Amino acid sequence: MNYSFVFYILGWVLTLEAGFMMLPCITSLIYREKAGLWFLLVAVVTAAGGLLLIRKKPKNPQFFTKEGFAVVGLSWIVMSLVGALPFTLSKEIPNYVDAIFETASGFTTTGASILTDVEALSHCTLLWRSFTHWIGGMGVFIFLLAVLPMAGGYNMNLMRAESPGPSVGKLVPKVKESAKILYIIYFAMTVTEMILLLIARMPVFDAICIAFGTAGTGGFGIRGDSCASYNAASQWIITVFMALFGINFNFYYFMLRKKFKDAFSIEEVRWYVALILLCTAFITFNTWGFYPTAEESLRTAAFQVSSIVTTTGFATTDFNLWPSFSKTILIILMLTGACAGSTGGGLKISRFIIWWKSIKNQLEAFVHPRSVNAVEMDGKTIDKDTVRSVSVYMVVFLLVYVISVFLLSLDQFDLVTNFTAVLATINNIGPGLGEVGPCGNFAGFSYASKVVLIFDMLAGRLELYPILLLLAPGVWKKH
Amino acid sequence: MNYSFVFYILGWVLTLEAGFMMLPCITSLIYREKAGLWFLLVAVVTAAGGLLLIRKKPKNPQFFTKEGFAVVGLSWIVMSLVGALPFTLSKEIPNYVDAIFETASGFTTTGASILTDVEALSHCTLLWRSFTHWIGGMGVFIFLLAVLPMAGGYNMNLMRAESPGPSVGKLVPKVKESAKILYIIYFAMTVTEMILLLIARMPVFDAICIAFGTAGTGGFGIRGDSCASYNAASQWIITVFMALFGINFNFYYFMLRKKFKDAFSIEEVRWYVALILLCTAFITFNTWGFYPTAEESLRTAAFQVSSIVTTTGFATTDFNLWPSFSKTILIILMLTGACAGSTGGGLKISRFIIWWKSIKNQLEAFVHPRSVNAVEMDGKTIDKDTVRSVSVYMVVFLLVYVISVFLLSLDQFDLVTNFTAVLATINNIGPGLGEVGPCGNFAGFSYASKVVLIFDMLAGRLELYPILLLLAPGVWKKH
Repeated sequence: MNYSFVFYILGWVLTLEAGFMMLPCITSLIYREKAGLWFLLVAVVTAAGGLLLIRKKPKNPQFFTKEGFAVVGLSWIVMSLVGALPFTLSKEIPNYVDAIFETASGFTTTGASILTDVEALSHCTLLWRSFTHWIGGMGVFIFLLAVLPMAGGYNMNLMRAESPGPSVGKLVPKVKESAKILYIIYFAMTVTEMILLLIARMPVFDAICIAFGTAGTGGFGIRGDSCASYNAASQWIITVFMALFGINFNFYYFMLRKKFKDAFSIEEVRWYVALILLCTAFITFNTWGFYPTAEESLRTAAFQVSSIVTTTGFATTDFNLWPSFSKTILIILMLTGACAGSTGGGLKISRFIIWWKSIKNQLEAFVHPRSVNAVEMDGKTIDKDTVRSVSVYMVVFLLVYVISVFLLSLDQFDLVTNFTAVLATINNIGPGLGEVGPCGNFAGFSYASKVVLIFDMLAGRLELYPILLLLAPGVWKKH
Repeated sequence: MNYSFVFYILGWVLTLEAGFMMLPCITSLIYREKAGLWFLLVAVVTAAGGLLLIRKKPKNPQFFTKEGFAVVGLSWIVMSLVGALPFTLSKEIPNYVDAIFETASGFTTTGASILTDVEALSHCTLLWRSFTHWIGGMGVFIFLLAVLPMAGGYNMNLMRAESPGPSVGKLVPKVKESAKILYIIYFAMTVTEMILLLIARMPVFDAICIAFGTAGTGGFGIRGDSCASYNAASQWIITVFMALFGINFNFYYFMLRKKFKDAFSIEEVRWYVALILLCTAFITFNTWGFYPTAEESLRTAAFQVSSIVTTTGFATTDFNLWPSFSKTILIILMLTGACAGSTGGGLKISRFIIWWKSIKNQLEAFVHPRSVNAVEMDGKTIDKDTVRSVSVYMVVFLLVYVISVFLLSLDQFDLVTNFTAVLATINNIGPGLGEVGPCGNFAGFSYASKVVLIFDMLAGRLELYPILLLLAPGVWKKH
């Protein structure tokens, strides 16, 4: 491990986080809240520490995949530890483990909460919670790469370690430019949603927080009932924007460059849209009669489908009460997740496409043993190594999942709660079913279980390897 | 598809099944039951049909993996359809779909039942149910290869399609000899168990049926409470024999040839034994106080662990009432299953070993990108193709699993019932949790769901591909 480089990068991350904390500080000025002082204090100390680390330039420029993965994993852990401090210092979340849970849930865009009464929090705390979604959604390293003068071959390693999905890469040859384009699209879409929500008469503070939560596909609400009390127009706007943020950002890049044909021929996007429409239709049909009007049935189904498939986790109803068929659809959507290269979590639709095609290939190989079939996506051949690593990914996912459920089961919750709690955290969704359903929360778990779930959230957001790698002893050896 | 060959093989399978039906016929003579006449009628018609098909020797000896897999898949379907006839004709299971469910559950050694009162059945029907376990356990093709004069290169294709696990092959160079050795071990162990059960004062009829069910790791009981009412000695004998039949049969082959070192160094067997001991200890501890004595706690835990890990499915208690921790352990054991090359089902422990090692390799590759690590098991390198196909297997398994749960969810049972019902059938276990727990049964599902579950049982027993392949249109083309 190249420690001098790792500390250097960590320095940048800390400085950046301190900068981000200015937003809750400003909020506290507007609302005249004392909690803001704690944000200021933490920001100042963090910035000092960060700047100290940056001053010492790394001696050795060697930086491989290992360092890229490890530094990204470490950064996300450190960000969560630091970001949790103001919660505990202001006593709004008195226990530090709970505060880390809430912050990791924010940065990883999970949206799972240990709070029983979210409306009791101050405005600056609420804003920080939602803002962590926005920061974590597109990723802090993509931001660093976009704004800082960091040149060198390690850029791609950082980008790859943080971007979701098996097929994410650069949009344009230069990493810095790609990162910039991604953030510009991200920023513009977030602002557009805020404006539309304001037009739909949502209060300003709500509009900002909800837009942050939608953009990062996070899901922290600022009201006790998540999004149930917003008007129909607002709910439709949120539904559409959740779905938009779950689309592969390559799509928007193609659209911007007026390559409409390229944009609409992305297989993953087509499957994603079809999945949303189909599942919405199924659930509308299955929950017919639960809601007074046809519009409300459709809106509620569409909102929940869009929220779960993108792994956002907002809710407008208690889907715990839906029939098994609809709940099963939601569990399947929890598993699939959104598109690769979006801000959404989950296993990603592109992986399912690759899996489906490898199975077809495997069966083909039995029928025609001598034919050689490559897996193709978007007209391009996917090399064997990618196909293999996508299959291994499923195995890694399942093992982490099973071990987590096993550890959680010591807590005596029922099976549905345990199984969906792990799914909701590892796939960065937020609510599960049972005790952790949209009307419940994660407060009841023991601290040991919360640590497991924090691990799952971080591992899930970073696609497992950057966090798992930190457990391999070989990583920590000096070289 | 080489149809003339397929029909020829199907002919042998039918003839063999007719022969197997002599056992319930004899039973009906002993107990003077009329139901035996139906077995005789079906056997005669089946034998006639089978012999007719055998008379026409195949013109074309071309026989590839495709034909091997397809003919095995087809044979198991036909066997279930034919084996179900006496149940329906004798009106002991009036509905034919239910009868197919019961028969497929028997042959695939699942042990899931649609019967609400098993004690109402006649002796010959009970014996046939249990005997299907014994036939299906080691496999009907292994039997055919052992006893019939079928030479040619296709033998290995048939053996591979029916034997469980990723690494099963021949014990000795000749397929015929391997199959013979397997059946001799199988037969000897079954008889040993029968004798021990008799010594433990179990009634003769019970001892025969229970031994069949244990040997095939099937799990059909002949009493309403499965094995709860047998005495402690019998339960311990069953526990040990269930565990023994879940061991890779290579182990016994090495033992017979006095290669003790080879036998005890099989990694899979070591993990399997460790898993049983560990899980028994966990559950004994977790359910302490549920049972009057320490011996009963230990015995109940050991019985259930042995029953579930080997996918047998006998029960001596309603583990639905256990705490979540113990139930989660059982679900994990339902997933792992027994050893490859045993009569047990499930994903097989050797697959988990390979998965675990590929993950370690993947992580190693991040740390030392230039090192080349091969996956090793039992001191031998596992080639890349095997590792890849083992990973793909998990993906195929998960997709079949998810689609099945989705279809089952239309039935309005709760989530735990649906998720474990599919797991219990696809991994050939028998009981699940919830409505399909050890005190429940599968009677309440709709016929559509039962067809899905029949598909899962057959697909699971034959390791997915032979059954899935039948759905690929390319298979049915003449060549």
